[in-house]
Amino acid sequence: MIFEAMVEIRTRPGISDPEGATIESALPRLGFGEVSGVRVGKAIRLSVDAPDEAGARRRLASLCDALLANPVMEDVEITLMAD
Amino acid sequence: MIFEAMVEIRTRPGISDPEGATIESALPRLGFGEVSGVRVGKAIRLSVDAPDEAGARRRLASLCDALLANPVMEDVEITLMAD
Repeated sequence: MIFEAMVEIRTRPGISDPEGATIESALPRLGFGEVSGVRVGKAIRLSVDAPDEAGARRRLASLCDALLANPVMEDVEITLMAD
Repeated sequence: MIFEAMVEIRTRPGISDPEGATIESALPRLGFGEVSGVRVGKAIRLSVDAPDEAGARRRLASLCDALLANPVMEDVEITLMAD
């Protein structure tokens, strides 16, 4: 069974996020002073072939550890959409 | 009212995604042959102060047009979590 998934990878609180800080510093000048707390992470979309949802989640968690994320600096959130 | 939001920015289908392609080419070697269709986008978390949900959405859509996304190459999805 093919599962479509989205893996969100964000820098942990306290870890600096230069891209988010740069966006945030431009906001008042562009007239978006009501926007704050900008943090830029990754949204990785992918498909995984697994027998069931639990299996798909397990494999994606392994993939994050092996390749996609740095567990010291980043938090990972896996969202599955059955297909 | 403060709304927490997540803005997902992905390259449109047909637009090349070198980072996704690089990840995908490494998958079989790492033992993840069951994973495919990797596309790497951005997940931007932010807070917006707006009178209601419709207003928050409108402001975030403007912000995407003005600063966050390139509408020629990228699709945007805005998800709001009331706070």
